[in-house]
Amino acid sequence: MNKVAITNFGNTKFSHDDISIESCLLSSTKSLFDQNSNLSKNDIDVVLVATNANEKYLAPILSELSGIKPKISHTVENLCSSGTNAIVSAYSYIASGLANMALVVGAERYDSPGQILEWDNSRGEYKHPIFWASIFTKSYKRKFGVTDEDLSIVSVKNHKNAKDNPNAYSNKTYTVEEVLHSKKLTDELKILDCSRPCTGSSAVLLTSENFAKNFTDTPVWIEGIGQKTTSASFTKNPSFTDMISTKEAARLAFENAKIHPTDVNVAEIHDAFSVCEPIILEDLGFVEKGKGLQFSKNMYDTDDRKINPRGGLIGAGHPLSATGVAQTIEIVQQIQGKAGKRQISNVDIGLVHNMSAAATSSTVLLLKS
Amino acid sequence: MNKVAITNFGNTKFSHDDISIESCLLSSTKSLFDQNSNLSKNDIDVVLVATNANEKYLAPILSELSGIKPKISHTVENLCSSGTNAIVSAYSYIASGLANMALVVGAERYDSPGQILEWDNSRGEYKHPIFWASIFTKSYKRKFGVTDEDLSIVSVKNHKNAKDNPNAYSNKTYTVEEVLHSKKLTDELKILDCSRPCTGSSAVLLTSENFAKNFTDTPVWIEGIGQKTTSASFTKNPSFTDMISTKEAARLAFENAKIHPTDVNVAEIHDAFSVCEPIILEDLGFVEKGKGLQFSKNMYDTDDRKINPRGGLIGAGHPLSATGVAQTIEIVQQIQGKAGKRQISNVDIGLVHNMSAAATSSTVLLLKS
Repeated sequence: MNKVAITNFGNTKFSHDDISIESCLLSSTKSLFDQNSNLSKNDIDVVLVATNANEKYLAPILSELSGIKPKISHTVENLCSSGTNAIVSAYSYIASGLANMALVVGAERYDSPGQILEWDNSRGEYKHPIFWASIFTKSYKRKFGVTDEDLSIVSVKNHKNAKDNPNAYSNKTYTVEEVLHSKKLTDELKILDCSRPCTGSSAVLLTSENFAKNFTDTPVWIEGIGQKTTSASFTKNPSFTDMISTKEAARLAFENAKIHPTDVNVAEIHDAFSVCEPIILEDLGFVEKGKGLQFSKNMYDTDDRKINPRGGLIGAGHPLSATGVAQTIEIVQQIQGKAGKRQISNVDIGLVHNMSAAATSSTVLLLKS
Repeated sequence: MNKVAITNFGNTKFSHDDISIESCLLSSTKSLFDQNSNLSKNDIDVVLVATNANEKYLAPILSELSGIKPKISHTVENLCSSGTNAIVSAYSYIASGLANMALVVGAERYDSPGQILEWDNSRGEYKHPIFWASIFTKSYKRKFGVTDEDLSIVSVKNHKNAKDNPNAYSNKTYTVEEVLHSKKLTDELKILDCSRPCTGSSAVLLTSENFAKNFTDTPVWIEGIGQKTTSASFTKNPSFTDMISTKEAARLAFENAKIHPTDVNVAEIHDAFSVCEPIILEDLGFVEKGKGLQFSKNMYDTDDRKINPRGGLIGAGHPLSATGVAQTIEIVQQIQGKAGKRQISNVDIGLVHNMSAAATSSTVLLLKS
């Protein structure tokens, strides 16, 4: 099986811009090409667009706009994990030998139609993701004796990290008090506990081993892949303090790569709401159950950026399908030593965790230098 | 690289039914499972939904509805070739070793939002596919001295073939005169020259070599894959009597499989409009340029079902994303000797041709016993 590298990327600033999805897709694609003069549009075999936008045949449209005539082109959608679903698909095209070079572009507008859980809506009143997050928050607080104040550290830490991310939606920092007293949206959640849907686009180039050296001296290898869908409805979860799809995706990825959670130097994890960060840290195997918030607090207290150096979804913003691609880019930059002010020292192995539909689907990627 | 087989399928009757996209997806999935008692829902690693429907996260929803907890699940969209795009993606998951068993389900409602070429609309008045088909028809007639009467043989033949397809939308046959005098839609096209968008769903199971024997004695192997996107706008085509993306996809597939067009015993080709059939026959290399209609007429005159035995899109109906999957099922059935009244004798190699966006994207699959 062919090895697969991520060699190049293109980023955009996450914003509230009212631009067309086509322009949004083009912006990160252009950024990727602008950063690599060796890269010819004729070399690209695959163009995958990750988006929840309702516009059709966006991959051929992006290809035409950017001068690419790919073999394979289509849209991939799986709500908030569309980005990593497209990356895994691109991986498989290269690993199987169908392609040598694949461009994956995730893009979303702030008003994306993918922000509502229509399927859970069919069962009652849980249409907006904030309702499952509220149920998880209430359960987590009760089970582990955690307070709103304890939870607020996630938002405080991730906004602080986002301050050094020039592409983040937010560049403000907040105190625990400010998070606690921000606008209350449900009994359990304040607005600063929530990631914000926004406009954004991120692009990565995946290549086979033979092509990687043409485009970078520091290819980053996809060493482990884990994905799992348990259902489409969070109400089927046997527990509201565990993310079963994340546990299973992590198990698959770590087994696949023969890597242990303690080997991971940096991780981008899907903090759609504050409570997600501790649960995910636990379900990835970084810390035992119930200790996730203490882990995040230790990171904050010691100024360690190991978890969500980019600022997470809460700090960086959450343009649904761009998120998984942007998370991946952050880990690539960290491994390549190109993360600027956010750089962590001695990064060899990084993890991406991206999920969707109230944690019923998860992707875990393990990247290595 | 792992070999990949198609082992099982589920079909539905194409209709004008007003059912939800979720029910539509489930119908062919259920048909697939009902036909194979050896198949366990726990075995399925990948669920790919091909659709133009605007509903989100349909692959997890279909998984939940049908009791599958896959590793990988997402929607694939590329207008009318969504079905074969998803099949090629499923192939790559298995060939790369990420999965052993992948379910691909294409489904569409009669009122699918994928019936309009919004991108060409942005350049003028060519919003509905009938306009590019009219331009191609006018060009083809002029260049090769072909008449409306000559063209009508495509509809006559494909409706005749569809009569023996219990899943076809139409079960009527028509004479040349009836096609010629059917409702005129543009200067060039009558309604019986056009395929009809409809409601339908088709499902196939792909497996790795080791798993194939568990589910069938007659696996059908994917031997060749060719895909090409030239642009998103047919107006960029250098000719209106050639389908460049089809030529390139065919070249890739035949090279890939070391198969020659003369080796092909049966082919499902994308006759969205009458003129498509001769041009595709020519661009696949079955017959020289300008001779496609004579080829179709010979098939009709000799009652040879080699081309579009299922009735093509014109006879069977065109539920966009289900079409590529249904075409593939027809070739699988022909190779397995299970095509009933439509069965052609001595089928070893079959071809699927599926395209989208006014022939700017094409897929060619070569299947073998």
